[in-house]
Amino acid sequence: MSTPVIEIVVVGNEILAGKTADRNAPFMIETLAGRGFGVSFVSVVGDDLHAAADSLAVAAARADLVLVTGGLGPTSDDITFEAAARAFGRDLVFHEDVLERIRALFEKRGRFMSGSNRRQAMLPEGSLVLENPMGTAPAVRLLAPGNAAAGTRRETEAYFMPGVPREMRAIFTDVIMPRVLERYEPPRIDTATVSLTGISESELFDGVKDLPGAAEALAFYPHYSGIEVRIATRDLAPAGAVELRDRICAMFGDRVFSTAGEPLEEALGRILIERDLTIAVAESCTGGLISHRLTNIPGSSAYFLLGVTAYANEAKIEILGVGEAVIAGHGAVSAETVKAMAEGVRRRAGSDIGVSTTGIAGPGGGSAEKPVGLMFMGLSAGDETVTKKLQFVEDRLINKNRMAQSVLDEVRRFIVNNEFKRFGNQ
Amino acid sequence: MSTPVIEIVVVGNEILAGKTADRNAPFMIETLAGRGFGVSFVSVVGDDLHAAADSLAVAAARADLVLVTGGLGPTSDDITFEAAARAFGRDLVFHEDVLERIRALFEKRGRFMSGSNRRQAMLPEGSLVLENPMGTAPAVRLLAPGNAAAGTRRETEAYFMPGVPREMRAIFTDVIMPRVLERYEPPRIDTATVSLTGISESELFDGVKDLPGAAEALAFYPHYSGIEVRIATRDLAPAGAVELRDRICAMFGDRVFSTAGEPLEEALGRILIERDLTIAVAESCTGGLISHRLTNIPGSSAYFLLGVTAYANEAKIEILGVGEAVIAGHGAVSAETVKAMAEGVRRRAGSDIGVSTTGIAGPGGGSAEKPVGLMFMGLSAGDETVTKKLQFVEDRLINKNRMAQSVLDEVRRFIVNNEFKRFGNQ
Repeated sequence: MSTPVIEIVVVGNEILAGKTADRNAPFMIETLAGRGFGVSFVSVVGDDLHAAADSLAVAAARADLVLVTGGLGPTSDDITFEAAARAFGRDLVFHEDVLERIRALFEKRGRFMSGSNRRQAMLPEGSLVLENPMGTAPAVRLLAPGNAAAGTRRETEAYFMPGVPREMRAIFTDVIMPRVLERYEPPRIDTATVSLTGISESELFDGVKDLPGAAEALAFYPHYSGIEVRIATRDLAPAGAVELRDRICAMFGDRVFSTAGEPLEEALGRILIERDLTIAVAESCTGGLISHRLTNIPGSSAYFLLGVTAYANEAKIEILGVGEAVIAGHGAVSAETVKAMAEGVRRRAGSDIGVSTTGIAGPGGGSAEKPVGLMFMGLSAGDETVTKKLQFVEDRLINKNRMAQSVLDEVRRFIVNNEFKRFGNQ
Repeated sequence: MSTPVIEIVVVGNEILAGKTADRNAPFMIETLAGRGFGVSFVSVVGDDLHAAADSLAVAAARADLVLVTGGLGPTSDDITFEAAARAFGRDLVFHEDVLERIRALFEKRGRFMSGSNRRQAMLPEGSLVLENPMGTAPAVRLLAPGNAAAGTRRETEAYFMPGVPREMRAIFTDVIMPRVLERYEPPRIDTATVSLTGISESELFDGVKDLPGAAEALAFYPHYSGIEVRIATRDLAPAGAVELRDRICAMFGDRVFSTAGEPLEEALGRILIERDLTIAVAESCTGGLISHRLTNIPGSSAYFLLGVTAYANEAKIEILGVGEAVIAGHGAVSAETVKAMAEGVRRRAGSDIGVSTTGIAGPGGGSAEKPVGLMFMGLSAGDETVTKKLQFVEDRLINKNRMAQSVLDEVRRFIVNNEFKRFGNQ
């Protein structure tokens, strides 16, 4: 038992072309990191037999554990097994049992298996077929001889998984990880996590960089739902993971929305349930994204009552009860309109909280007075409605995303702090 | 002049950890593809001297042109030049002129250069320093001897660029691409694209696999908005890209939603504008996602009037005018309710088309009679409202996504075909 050199090989033109982001390598890296294993190389290669064979040969020569995803499907550009056969000097052998499993799966789904699926049952000699509980592509383990030049290296273990993320995840988690944990001993580590929003990565970094052992222990993962700080300390680190986490929480106060690794909408949902509160949302510039994020969380029907995406002024007036004079006097993009929208949707839904957005997402519709990226949010709760003006500067999709994030976080902080003064009236 | 084998090497723990998406490789791939060059390998490696040296040596041995980004900064984890020196068998040499340029840049910004910047001026022997118009990190070209084993291979050209995307982009576009175009002749290619939905990848493949030159010319990119088939034909291919595209279109009829590479919601938006139609959406199980996708398109306010995410029954009754008796008699998840929702939101918004969804997204809320994944959609237009029952089998997020995709496509086909009979009443 020792620490393995791990390489991930991702096969697929769609990944190499850079248009589809690979989600499989990050998933494996994260899962492995959670057990203390680091990945040394990620190689991406297209659906090209020669290039894929070359990458697999390189990986087998330098790594102990090679994790391969993609290129196991039924089409002629699915070349991974052929490339593996070539890289490892094996023949391709037909596996009747694999084809039978595929046929059974098709039958269960009420479809006929196509002739091209036979291709999926051609595996390199010496393949150990693993369980794939979810799809047609077989998952396989191959053992390759260790690199002779390196002398003492034991044989390389290579696992082949389909590229479809949900299939790959099930196989990796349920079948491969247990085998890895049995074979290799990870270093002992201690982990924690803190998620923050409403703060830039450089502000965050400047704040935490002098914490004991920070350079070794902290990793920053910015994404649509804020910045997640992952903390991993090894034996003999100057501070434990939980100690570092608590110091970061103390440093940034209500900028921290979770220490459980959950997205902001899940943290907010938990808070709403804990306090037995309901919410309704009236969206203009965010176009349904806030409702979508809130309803991504299982059980959200307990607190999410209603979302209205009121693009047309008539919808603002008739459904949300915004006064015609308000829109005529101040415009649809104004503090007055957003206030009436928040109150209107709350009244409509009979919810404890009403939230609203209006603004100019872009690229068109801006003016000197109301430029692209100008947005207002409203929050109605108790006997008060407050509004906030924001100015974003990016493109339409980024503006929608930033605004939705800001609004969800304002609601969270409003509930947690119960400080109406956080919302400066315009 | 010939076609080079190109490899990209990305150096950086933050990329290897998989949470910061690398934007540099996609940028280079796209820029190169625009001139007819394909990339064969992308290798990602951490800030680890041994691993980076190994990756650079592998790249130099198999590629003619190696494009390296990241690890050129002033801190101790910036190891790319040291790794290159090791991989190519060179010494590191101090470059006074490079340090002077860094010092001047700091002065211009009113800051003092730190001692650690001296590290950035230690370059492998034989480095050609290139212009970096935007930052302190030098961009460098190195020539490595060709792979002796391969015999005829000429020397490998390696370019090193900083990882900061805006610096990397400026250097790559302004300095490196002109050099690449001077040295190599791209193959002449001809491209086209077809996007389809409502069809599985294997059905699609079975249909197109016998088209002339299909194996070489076609690549399949499945994503949330269907399957995009990219067609690229080279000189002397048996059929041109446009000919292949037209044959695929003829083969799959209304499963094709675009030949412009656009997502489904953009294709639908174009159709709505062309026919001067407006739309309103009442969502339950999709939770706002359909509204979100429709409003992602610039100019969507011309046709998208209203979205209602009616999670609570009260919202369905009061805002959408669904009869209490309908819900009591058939349940919120039923053809009757979804029909009333489509009609209700259309009436509310005064739109030409009303669309609706209701269902059980999961993971909770299912029963033997109405299992998780059971969903209904409604479409009201002209003097008719039709409904459709669908059964999904995945997790909550996938079910939401699949349903939204199905609904957007039903609306598109409804408009294009004007065939009410496509919607079997339940």
